[in-house]
Amino acid sequence: MQFHHHGYVSENPRVLPSPGQTVDSASVPETADVLIIGAGPAGMITAAQLAMFPDIRTVLVERRPHRLILGHADGIAARSVETFQAFGFAPQIIQEAYQITETAFWKADPNKPENIVRAKVTADDPTGISEFPHLIVNQARVLDYFAEFAQRAPARLEPHYGWETTSLEIAEGDYPVVATVKNAEGVERVIRAKYALGADGAHSLVRKAIGAQHLGGISNHAWGVADVLATTDFPDIRTKCIIHSSKGSILHIPREGGYLFRTYVDLGEVPEGDDGQVRKTPLEEILRKCNAIMAPYSIDVKNVAWWSVYEVGHRVTDRFDDVPTAEVGTRTPRVFIAGDACHTHSAKAGQGMNVSMQDGFNLAWKLAQVLRSQSPESLLETYTAERQAIAQDLIDFDREWSYRMADAGSTRGSAESIEDFYVSTWEFPAGFGTHYKPSVLTGAGTHQDLATGFPVGRRFKSYGVVRRSDAVPKHLGHLAEADGRWRLYAFADKAPAGDAGSKLAQWGQWLGSEAGPLKRYTAAGADVNSLFDVKVIYQQGVHDFEITDVPEVFKPANGPFALNNWENVFAVDTADDIFEGRGVSRDGVVVVVRPDQYVAHVLPLDATEELSKFFEGIFLPQN
Amino acid sequence: MQFHHHGYVSENPRVLPSPGQTVDSASVPETADVLIIGAGPAGMITAAQLAMFPDIRTVLVERRPHRLILGHADGIAARSVETFQAFGFAPQIIQEAYQITETAFWKADPNKPENIVRAKVTADDPTGISEFPHLIVNQARVLDYFAEFAQRAPARLEPHYGWETTSLEIAEGDYPVVATVKNAEGVERVIRAKYALGADGAHSLVRKAIGAQHLGGISNHAWGVADVLATTDFPDIRTKCIIHSSKGSILHIPREGGYLFRTYVDLGEVPEGDDGQVRKTPLEEILRKCNAIMAPYSIDVKNVAWWSVYEVGHRVTDRFDDVPTAEVGTRTPRVFIAGDACHTHSAKAGQGMNVSMQDGFNLAWKLAQVLRSQSPESLLETYTAERQAIAQDLIDFDREWSYRMADAGSTRGSAESIEDFYVSTWEFPAGFGTHYKPSVLTGAGTHQDLATGFPVGRRFKSYGVVRRSDAVPKHLGHLAEADGRWRLYAFADKAPAGDAGSKLAQWGQWLGSEAGPLKRYTAAGADVNSLFDVKVIYQQGVHDFEITDVPEVFKPANGPFALNNWENVFAVDTADDIFEGRGVSRDGVVVVVRPDQYVAHVLPLDATEELSKFFEGIFLPQN
Repeated sequence: MQFHHHGYVSENPRVLPSPGQTVDSASVPETADVLIIGAGPAGMITAAQLAMFPDIRTVLVERRPHRLILGHADGIAARSVETFQAFGFAPQIIQEAYQITETAFWKADPNKPENIVRAKVTADDPTGISEFPHLIVNQARVLDYFAEFAQRAPARLEPHYGWETTSLEIAEGDYPVVATVKNAEGVERVIRAKYALGADGAHSLVRKAIGAQHLGGISNHAWGVADVLATTDFPDIRTKCIIHSSKGSILHIPREGGYLFRTYVDLGEVPEGDDGQVRKTPLEEILRKCNAIMAPYSIDVKNVAWWSVYEVGHRVTDRFDDVPTAEVGTRTPRVFIAGDACHTHSAKAGQGMNVSMQDGFNLAWKLAQVLRSQSPESLLETYTAERQAIAQDLIDFDREWSYRMADAGSTRGSAESIEDFYVSTWEFPAGFGTHYKPSVLTGAGTHQDLATGFPVGRRFKSYGVVRRSDAVPKHLGHLAEADGRWRLYAFADKAPAGDAGSKLAQWGQWLGSEAGPLKRYTAAGADVNSLFDVKVIYQQGVHDFEITDVPEVFKPANGPFALNNWENVFAVDTADDIFEGRGVSRDGVVVVVRPDQYVAHVLPLDATEELSKFFEGIFLPQN
Repeated sequence: MQFHHHGYVSENPRVLPSPGQTVDSASVPETADVLIIGAGPAGMITAAQLAMFPDIRTVLVERRPHRLILGHADGIAARSVETFQAFGFAPQIIQEAYQITETAFWKADPNKPENIVRAKVTADDPTGISEFPHLIVNQARVLDYFAEFAQRAPARLEPHYGWETTSLEIAEGDYPVVATVKNAEGVERVIRAKYALGADGAHSLVRKAIGAQHLGGISNHAWGVADVLATTDFPDIRTKCIIHSSKGSILHIPREGGYLFRTYVDLGEVPEGDDGQVRKTPLEEILRKCNAIMAPYSIDVKNVAWWSVYEVGHRVTDRFDDVPTAEVGTRTPRVFIAGDACHTHSAKAGQGMNVSMQDGFNLAWKLAQVLRSQSPESLLETYTAERQAIAQDLIDFDREWSYRMADAGSTRGSAESIEDFYVSTWEFPAGFGTHYKPSVLTGAGTHQDLATGFPVGRRFKSYGVVRRSDAVPKHLGHLAEADGRWRLYAFADKAPAGDAGSKLAQWGQWLGSEAGPLKRYTAAGADVNSLFDVKVIYQQGVHDFEITDVPEVFKPANGPFALNNWENVFAVDTADDIFEGRGVSRDGVVVVVRPDQYVAHVLPLDATEELSKFFEGIFLPQN
């Protein structure tokens, strides 16, 4: 965490300096650069990210008259915790969340089929795919943390609660998106925006307004779900369980705080023509069925925080913006949809909130770069291109998962089969299945062999290093903040730090030159590292070179006093070398990472022309 | 973190339920159970701890009209971070602090004595005395976190800023302490209190009011100190340094935020009869001297956040309460002093804030137990008995440290000698030198061999275990919250969890019996674990026993729904067994730990009579 370089900071350094351009949260403004409709996970992360830019006017309207009180989503994949780290609240949310370390599989006792027995317990992250935990925490708290981030960010952004969006159209002019909003008193206001995001849920008005098709349907299987406080003799009440008994199935999820748990109870096949009758199943019936499935154990429910009955739906929208496929390339998108507005599915794989947040994280920095004239408008076409494929993967995964959960009697639904599926597909539900294809934003992977542990198109997987300036061990990826900056990780060749002829020194010289990306793409007057956050990792240990020998370009002058930033120079942890751990070439390599933490390119240090060309496709020259 | 067991919690679970008994912070009340004078580290931690008890009326008055803006203390020993963990803000403060991992020793270059050279770099915690880091962070932020804790605690306590205490007397009656306070408008108010704490600094009015003597004096050595932003070619600018050049000495401390650092510059011997003239040394002279000492390197100062000149003083007060030594035992104390009010010394060993907080942490739970009729008033005599010895140790350490720092020319002040002293005495400045002597609160250590890693009288040193209910690895000591509860760590004998004849099961039976401490000392109507937090650690691994086999007394019913608390049962980490790591007997043992985290007793499981007797000296029967 860096501060004091603009002068002494006495109060909470997480409250960032602001030019005071705050939004009055009691009324709604008439114009916005970005109008976000819906303060759920997708809308909130987008608002939080955009709030880092006080020169962008972001307006977030939400129908609810207040913060979310009881959210229904609660599963937080490790990829989301990694994202929270960038927003500065990973330690805090881990502190209050339930942490999933294991899944217990229970099945009918072969000797006494009316009872369940524990079949197996498997580790939740058997392959160590992330150093972050898998959490369960109320969606309302996730939104609270994003709201706090947005409020402390330079734009001092706060949601406008209590405004329902009643219409949205795309017209002409500088502010072509025209939305009408209405509050509880019936007051109507028109907001004109350059861009709009519909993060307005499964029944999205924005989706309909842009003519996108929500494809798929509802399956014929129903589930009851309840968040309960209970006493019990079931030994795994604080463990995630998948229970397949002779009387049906339960997905059991312990919740944060040590006592509460959520039970998903299989209500069986829904007859043809049921027409939603199953949704009238009373709570008592769900709890009775729950107890029947869990025999010989019982749960004695003392308090119910929330409950519901739902039928499983699997739907994905054909496009995520207002440009029909046939018109792509003829005009650039103005309106986007994200989260449940473009993909709905069962809650049980714990994916909804996670994928929705990644939608918003993907879109927000792109909007910022276009609005700040750093990138052409065509950059926004990559949103649908990247996220629509992920949504389809999600729906496919969820359909398979749901079928297996509901089909306990078959081979596919056996405890063993579910467990195999769970372990073999683990990467996807943890949030690490995303692999963007080569595009303007994603290199071809021609030089992938130079850094095998940083696959192009996938999220940058962190590794331990040691900061040279203070010898503090750091996880390299955890230093990436949600500040909209691109990361250039320069892994040095073997030469000593002071060797002016080294490949790294040569690369550094190019980097800081007139032709280099720092001068070419960074706005005049801004700190030289305000668009590209350059970090250098030497092959030597922390005491094997002096930071004063490191080229100046890696210690950029920051703030009004032009103080050198010494926190971008790293040594290897000699006991656990990142070059070994991530398969990084000893000849050095540059790993380019996008603001949303995906590896955009891997290039040798001397491939400066190739890197220049790659950036030309993304950025607009500033000078 | 536990919640939801009183019903669903939607908002930040760190804001604890409150009966609404809040204090109006704009005026001051006429009576208080505890009046705290001074909102520095000692006063704030005391207030934060007492705020956990809504039935105790705590009033904190502070002369300053607002929160502290720029504190001069900044060193946070690992013991303090351990304490912050109990107050729930260790992860947050680590996030924003500078972390000291090394100290670099610089000396005059033997070949070119006008220049300095790096002599050696030593690890800051070479022996691994704590799993917590050694931090540097502005005192104001420490106070902010305590204030936030107090405000979120059940008493919803907030400091009364802008009230200076002008007199304090001890009279008769239920509220014998009579203090007069005055605000900036000259409005005077009288506050009558049962107890008072003078945490009012080196010039303490309370100290004078109780007739305590501040013994010691000012040495004849002066230092200039400045918090600066600068550019430099000194390679260790982000490392803690002890610099002994031919032109004098510097203690160099990097600060939080990546850029700021503090330099303590030796201004040399102060002539006899100087009469404070040295304190008029201008900033320019300090910075000139700093540059002279650091040659051949230079610092180019761009901004100064704060600076001062001081002479080193070493003073300790003869007693820490209002009862003169000759009268101890004839009456119990009503007024206490803590922090700088009873020990002043140089800032350079980074001890002041740390020892002051431990003063308050020591006193607060004792006040709570007496005010809540859980303990006799004589418990309060242990405050002076315990803390006065620590203060003397501190002054002795600081005097030696200051002499060595200032005496660079001698053998004692050589870089090698300083380094040896530093490494050999490391335990003390890290905050772990405290070793309370046998007393009513501290057992004799007769059974110390049963748990060699938990020395009686010293702070409970944490170790890794695995929670049985959810298989989450936990640091046992980090679960201890600043809730005023005593911890009973029951280490089981080898028998399986379900063995009713095991020593642990027998101990559990006694624990929950009519004669046991839970029923005897816990207030009627309160949760059975509201005074004693009992945690059991089995010798088996997490999958080697069922939590349902663990005796009920270890899964206490909590809250209005009488839900079993399953989070007090632990397994060993089979890869790093606490029984091995802390030398715990395989026959089982009970480790008793006070609310301020000091080991009070170590006893075999069958020594229930000895434990009963020990508790009789501390607690009053409730039923």
